[in-house]
Amino acid sequence: MSVKIPRGFKFSAVEAAIKRPGRKDLALIYSDVEATAGAVFTKNLIKAAPVKICIKKIASQKARAIIVNSGNANACTGKRGIEDANEMVRLVAKGLNIDERLVYPASTGVIGVPLPMERIRAAIPDLIGGLGKASLEELARAIMTTDTFPKYISADLKVGDETGTITAVAKGAGMINPSMATMLCFIITDLSVEKLSLSKALNEAVEQSFNRITVDGDRSTNDMVMIMANSLAGNDTITMKSKYYKDFKKVLNSITYELSKSIVKDGEGATKLIKVIVRRAPSRKDAELVARGVANSLLVKTAFYGNDANWGRIMAAIGASGAKVVEDKIEIYFNHLQVVKGGMSAGNDSTANELLKASKELNLIIDLATGKEEFSVLTCDISEDYVRINAEYRS
Amino acid sequence: MSVKIPRGFKFSAVEAAIKRPGRKDLALIYSDVEATAGAVFTKNLIKAAPVKICIKKIASQKARAIIVNSGNANACTGKRGIEDANEMVRLVAKGLNIDERLVYPASTGVIGVPLPMERIRAAIPDLIGGLGKASLEELARAIMTTDTFPKYISADLKVGDETGTITAVAKGAGMINPSMATMLCFIITDLSVEKLSLSKALNEAVEQSFNRITVDGDRSTNDMVMIMANSLAGNDTITMKSKYYKDFKKVLNSITYELSKSIVKDGEGATKLIKVIVRRAPSRKDAELVARGVANSLLVKTAFYGNDANWGRIMAAIGASGAKVVEDKIEIYFNHLQVVKGGMSAGNDSTANELLKASKELNLIIDLATGKEEFSVLTCDISEDYVRINAEYRS
Repeated sequence: MSVKIPRGFKFSAVEAAIKRPGRKDLALIYSDVEATAGAVFTKNLIKAAPVKICIKKIASQKARAIIVNSGNANACTGKRGIEDANEMVRLVAKGLNIDERLVYPASTGVIGVPLPMERIRAAIPDLIGGLGKASLEELARAIMTTDTFPKYISADLKVGDETGTITAVAKGAGMINPSMATMLCFIITDLSVEKLSLSKALNEAVEQSFNRITVDGDRSTNDMVMIMANSLAGNDTITMKSKYYKDFKKVLNSITYELSKSIVKDGEGATKLIKVIVRRAPSRKDAELVARGVANSLLVKTAFYGNDANWGRIMAAIGASGAKVVEDKIEIYFNHLQVVKGGMSAGNDSTANELLKASKELNLIIDLATGKEEFSVLTCDISEDYVRINAEYRS
Repeated sequence: MSVKIPRGFKFSAVEAAIKRPGRKDLALIYSDVEATAGAVFTKNLIKAAPVKICIKKIASQKARAIIVNSGNANACTGKRGIEDANEMVRLVAKGLNIDERLVYPASTGVIGVPLPMERIRAAIPDLIGGLGKASLEELARAIMTTDTFPKYISADLKVGDETGTITAVAKGAGMINPSMATMLCFIITDLSVEKLSLSKALNEAVEQSFNRITVDGDRSTNDMVMIMANSLAGNDTITMKSKYYKDFKKVLNSITYELSKSIVKDGEGATKLIKVIVRRAPSRKDAELVARGVANSLLVKTAFYGNDANWGRIMAAIGASGAKVVEDKIEIYFNHLQVVKGGMSAGNDSTANELLKASKELNLIIDLATGKEEFSVLTCDISEDYVRINAEYRS
C-alpha cells in the first residue's frame, strides 16, 4: 500500500492500556493548520458519547485534531461518558494550545464500561509530545479492535499545477452492516475543498462503500467517517462546479471503496469476499432488498464457507427479502458460471463447488430479469471462528 | 410427552432413501373420514411446489390425508416439481381409493433438486399398506431434517359430555424466523370444529407460536402448519360462538407454543433457549421491532453462547432495530437480575455472567419505559456447531 501523508498532518500513538496493556490504543491525528471538515455517523439510535459530541461539533465544518481510542466504545456510559469524552478533548486542546472546538473525540471497543480516564489522562502528554513520530500504519494499528490487519491507503490527485494527497485509515471487522457498523475511518487531505462540496463528496463516497458492506448484519453505536482538508497543497479550492470535483470524488470513492473492501475481507473469521450484485430489478429498492437479504443470510454465508454451491438458500433468501421477484425468471451466476436458470438448477452444481473451493473472492450475480435497476453489497462467509471470536470478545 | 392419538387417524412411515438410505423419510397421515381442514403457509415469495399445490387445495377446507417427505424440499424445481408433487398425491389417492382433492403433499429438505420419484413411487404401496403401524414418534422422526429430537405432543379437551384429543407433530431446527421458517407442523383432532372457526383458531395459534420464534433469521420456502378435524369425538360442533371455542383455542395455543419452543431448543448447535420480552414500548410495532432485532442479532447470540452478559450488544441491537427508543430510559433484566439501569450498567455484570453459565433457559426482559405495549420472541444462542452443521448440510 502507498503511504504518502498529506502536507501538514502528523500522527501519534501511545499505550494507555485501555482494555489491557501491551499495545498502543490511543491515537492523535493533527493538522498544523485549521482544516475544512465533514463527517458521517452511525444511524443507530443508541450513540456513543463521542459520536453525540462530534455530531454537534461538525456543524462548524472545521477541525484540527482527532483523538481516538480503541478498546472501549464509551457508549451507554451516560453523563460520565460525555464528561470523559469532553475531558479528552480539553486535554488535547490545552496540550496543543488550540481551540477545543476544533478537537474531535472517537472511540471503539466494548460498550457500557466507563473509560479508564486516569490512564488516558496520564497518557495524553506523551500522545501530544509524540506527534510526528507515528507512521500511518502505527496510527491504523492503534485504532484496531478485532481487526487482524491495519487498514490504510493513500492516493495523489493533481489539481491544476498542484498535486495533493488523500490518505485514510480505517478499522472494522465484524458487526459491519447496512449502516456502517463498528467502523471508523479518518480521511485527511492537503487539498483545498469547499466545505459543502467536501461534505457532499464524503456522503456519496460513504454511500457507495461503507454503507454497502456487511459482515453480520449488526450496527454499531460508534461508527463514523470523518474527513479533514487543510488546503496546504495550495490548489484552487475545489467546488462542486470546478472541473476537478469529479476527479476528487473519483479518488475519494476509490479510497473508501478499497477500505470498505478490506474491512469485509477482515470480517471476523471470514475466508471469502463475496460481492452480491443484483441486476435487472424492477426498482432500486427491490435490488437493494435482495442484495442485503442475501448478503446477510446466515444460511447463505455458512454455505459459502463450506464451499457448497447451495443456490437453494440464495433463492430462499431472495424470496424472503421483501422484494418483488418472479421465481421462474431468476438467474444466478458465480462469476461467469450460471448456477440457476429460470429459477431452477442450471446443472452446474459440481463445477460451482469446485469454483468456490478455488475462490477467495467471488461475484454472486443475481439477475431478476424484471427491470433495469442494480445494487451491490460486499459480504463475506461466516466460519466457526466468527462465533469463537464473538463468544470470547469481552473475556 | 403424552402421545394419545385422536380417533380415526392412522400413520405410516417408510424408507424411500430420498436423500440417502438408512432412515424412514416418507410418511402418511390419514383420517378414516373426511376432516375439516385449515392451513397456514410460508410468506416467502419463493414457494416449494407442494406449498403452491396446498394453497390451492386448502380453499376447500377438506382433507383426508397428508403425504410428507423429508430430505428434499421439492422447491425451485419448476414444472417438474409440481408434476412430482401431484403424482405423489395421485398415487396416494389411488392406493387409498379416496378423492385426490383430499390428499395434501408436503416436503422439507434440500432446495433445487428434483425428487427421486422412482424411489418414492416404489415406496408408496408399502406406505399405504403400513397405515396404522407407525407410532406418533415414528411419524415425527420421519419428517426430521437437521432436528436432533422428534417433536410431538397431545392434549385432551372435554366438550360437553365428549372428550376429544388434539395431537400434533412438528419438525424444525435452524432457519427459523419471523414468518415460520423450515418448519412443518401437522395437527390432528377428532373434535368437530366449524371450518371458519378452525382456520381462525389456527391462525391465532400460529401467530403466538411459530411466528414468534427465530433461530437464524432465515425463512424457508416450505413452511406449513396444517390442521385436520375429523369430528369422530361426536361433540357438538365448536364454533366461534360456542362456549368451548375459548377452551379449544387455549389447548391449540398451548400445543403450538410448546412445539415452537421445542423447535428453538433444537436450534442447530444451540445451547440456550432465550425468551426476549419487550415491555412498555410506545407501540406494538416498536415492541416487535426491538424483540426481533435483539433475537436475531448475531452478536447478541454469540455473547449468550459465550456466557458473556454483554448487554452493550443488546443496547446496540435495540438502537439499530428501527424502533423508537429513549436510550437513558432503557432497563434490561436477565430473569430477575437487572443488568441495565437508565441505559447504563446496573453493576451486575459478573453476577449476570454466573447466571448465564447456570442457565439453559433465560428470560431477557427489555423495558423501554416509554409506553404500554409488549411483544416477545423465542430465540437461542449460536455456537460453532451452527456453522459446522450449515456448512456441511448438503455434503
